[in-house]
Amino acid sequence: MIRSDTICAISTPAGQGGIAVIRVSGKDAVAICNRICRPARKSGTLSEQPANTVVFGSILREGRLLDEALATVFRAPRSYTGEDTVEISCHGSVFIQQELLKLLMANGCRMAAAGEFTQRAFLNGKLDLSQAEAVGDLIASSSAAAHRMAMRQMRGEFSRQLSELRRQLLKFTSLIELELDFSEEDVEFADRNELKQLAGGIEAAIRRLVTSFDTGNAIKNGIPVAIAGATNAGKSTLLNRLLKDERAIVSDVHGTTRDSIEDTVTLEGLLFRFIDTAGIRRTDDAVERLGVERTFRKIEQASIVLWVIDLTADAVPLSEEIAERCRNKRLMLVLNKSDRLTEDALAEKTAYYRRTGREYTVISAKSDADVSALERRLTDIARFLHTEGDDVVVSNLRHREALQKTAEALRRVIDGLNAGVSGEFLAQDIRECMHFLGEITGEITTDEVLGNIFGNFCIGK
Amino acid sequence: MIRSDTICAISTPAGQGGIAVIRVSGKDAVAICNRICRPARKSGTLSEQPANTVVFGSILREGRLLDEALATVFRAPRSYTGEDTVEISCHGSVFIQQELLKLLMANGCRMAAAGEFTQRAFLNGKLDLSQAEAVGDLIASSSAAAHRMAMRQMRGEFSRQLSELRRQLLKFTSLIELELDFSEEDVEFADRNELKQLAGGIEAAIRRLVTSFDTGNAIKNGIPVAIAGATNAGKSTLLNRLLKDERAIVSDVHGTTRDSIEDTVTLEGLLFRFIDTAGIRRTDDAVERLGVERTFRKIEQASIVLWVIDLTADAVPLSEEIAERCRNKRLMLVLNKSDRLTEDALAEKTAYYRRTGREYTVISAKSDADVSALERRLTDIARFLHTEGDDVVVSNLRHREALQKTAEALRRVIDGLNAGVSGEFLAQDIRECMHFLGEITGEITTDEVLGNIFGNFCIGK
Repeated sequence: MIRSDTICAISTPAGQGGIAVIRVSGKDAVAICNRICRPARKSGTLSEQPANTVVFGSILREGRLLDEALATVFRAPRSYTGEDTVEISCHGSVFIQQELLKLLMANGCRMAAAGEFTQRAFLNGKLDLSQAEAVGDLIASSSAAAHRMAMRQMRGEFSRQLSELRRQLLKFTSLIELELDFSEEDVEFADRNELKQLAGGIEAAIRRLVTSFDTGNAIKNGIPVAIAGATNAGKSTLLNRLLKDERAIVSDVHGTTRDSIEDTVTLEGLLFRFIDTAGIRRTDDAVERLGVERTFRKIEQASIVLWVIDLTADAVPLSEEIAERCRNKRLMLVLNKSDRLTEDALAEKTAYYRRTGREYTVISAKSDADVSALERRLTDIARFLHTEGDDVVVSNLRHREALQKTAEALRRVIDGLNAGVSGEFLAQDIRECMHFLGEITGEITTDEVLGNIFGNFCIGK
Repeated sequence: MIRSDTICAISTPAGQGGIAVIRVSGKDAVAICNRICRPARKSGTLSEQPANTVVFGSILREGRLLDEALATVFRAPRSYTGEDTVEISCHGSVFIQQELLKLLMANGCRMAAAGEFTQRAFLNGKLDLSQAEAVGDLIASSSAAAHRMAMRQMRGEFSRQLSELRRQLLKFTSLIELELDFSEEDVEFADRNELKQLAGGIEAAIRRLVTSFDTGNAIKNGIPVAIAGATNAGKSTLLNRLLKDERAIVSDVHGTTRDSIEDTVTLEGLLFRFIDTAGIRRTDDAVERLGVERTFRKIEQASIVLWVIDLTADAVPLSEEIAERCRNKRLMLVLNKSDRLTEDALAEKTAYYRRTGREYTVISAKSDADVSALERRLTDIARFLHTEGDDVVVSNLRHREALQKTAEALRRVIDGLNAGVSGEFLAQDIRECMHFLGEITGEITTDEVLGNIFGNFCIGK
């Protein structure tokens, strides 16, 4: 990555709108924009504009007017990227946006790669790597919980916690290294018990962060809820009602849903990922049998399983296989099609399922009131599942893996302490811990890692 | 329309992006934003910011951080709307955009109606009505020609021309009215011949503008090109090639295309609207017969007709009916499927159509080179059809109608002059002329007219 060049990109969402913003960043940003933009008032050229001011002017291409636009000038290091930056706010026609980009490129800009503005902000020390990643999460966040989590990370709360752990590790190292300096004298400066306590404390903190990933992932990608049950129990109808959409094809033919369908919906600020599954029944149809296998895999991924039961069918207990597969999940029986039963029949069926001792709810997927009640049950369960509080939550797989490796290295330190290994070996493992923590915040990084991270950003950010 | 309230809307395109801009305009714009935005540096509150400066700050909702954003402050009358305005550039998550809007509304903003910012700009005298309309056209423009036309109108060239016509009409009126003041003395101050000449000149200018509408409309909505011909001549295949798309269903069954399909494409900066039509043949199928009727109506609307002929079918002359219907069009025979003929057969067929004296081109719709050549022919014809130059071109139906009415009133003035009617009657018709011209620039307008115009804008502009 060459940072000496000047990049440009459309930073606002794609398409037509009232206005669009094109961002230009790099050492020639002001000079390039100065060539194409003539301020309307006699307030001097764009280059002469003070930092953090906006001017109205004409965008000219070969002397012809391309647009009338606002240009805001930022000067290094006080900008998002830490470089000189100009943001051009033009009319939001797709044509103008494209032509303006072309004009900037003809004047020496390079089209920015995905996430390159944020990458430059990182490289210029405006934010660390975990904060930069949080920018991407923030933009993608679609629920209050995901937004709050990303915002906290972007503000550096996770980074601060990591740096506190690093500080403790450094203390540990310094004690050990002091000892190494005097190794010939065979003295132990560092009290082994104190070290064990310190290492144990750090390990616990890191394990807590690793564990928080399940919550973080559910917040970011949605709490996975599998909708399963026998064929024709009304799973797809229920999914459609929950998604307020006509995603799944509904028909009266048994086994209509062969591919599992997923979509997310936000209920009371919580993001749910509903997973429709193929109906479970014995079948000779090879394609459908594949669907059933997939259903089991989907149940595996879910935190909550809604097991939909057709009240008009014969009452049967949940099979051992299913019960076993849902052992670590929150399982709820959804007794569907209540509208098709007489009051007496309904009472009898409900009593049957009540006796199984399982959590259940009676609904008619066609009734708005019933679906709303089910949604409330789900949000109650979900709130119980992720008791967020104000704790830092890890939501990034890369971070989780680095933390996992840190924890493993720490385990070796503790084992080493217990086995009474020499300070040299301890120091080696502690350095590894610090290395892995440094990977998260980007103190230690490779172009490949950066490429993976920023490649997932949108262009213009 | 109450202009005392403060409005807000997302001004950037809908959806997720790097950043989004929310615009707030009205007398309380700064005060409202001041309540929710806390500048990061100790540079005072948002209210204390000088005009045309941008600050980085925190957007707070009930003390919690919603986003970190840039806020640009504009003060009346130096803003787009002519009112105090704040533009908040936030992270482009859909969630943040929505929450920020809600926050602004909770603090006293009203959600802006479509085009309301531009409507306020008009009401505050920042631009006249035809310029305001050009803003909408500019945003919608998708070709260089449409962009140039809208830009010219937004810059006020059309308005200046209308105001010149108005000035001449005023001169006319003052001459007439002077005469009326002295009516008892039966003197003619205004030389009738001079008046006739003046009226004739204005009428000619207005008729020229009315006529320019065909060009303006073609630039704005695309030059209409009908693709017609016998069934199975390859019209849909050709359309798909021209649109670089799979819009029309292509099959070998005669009469596949029953509904006409339209789409636009930009070739060398010119916007074309291609219209596929049902194949013309005698048919007993009632549905298909309707398609044929529609084909004739489509041909009616086109400026250019591509009459596609299947070279593998028997050579037949163009029917009298078709020739008649294309009398005022630019008609070109497109001899298709050349790849299926031997060289000799092709030469013979081509000679046959050459003898008809009609413009023709030989292609195989499957050949990229042939399609490119046809595109070049089209752009040549189109450039010839609308010799734009730097003349003002009318592209708005509302303007065309007002100009038409002006021309009719002027006709009555000229007829009156010829018939020697009294100054009073002449003055009446001239006032009408000025009324109609005033409708275009918005000096005379109604809420209904404004509602129609701005209702077609996007929200946020």
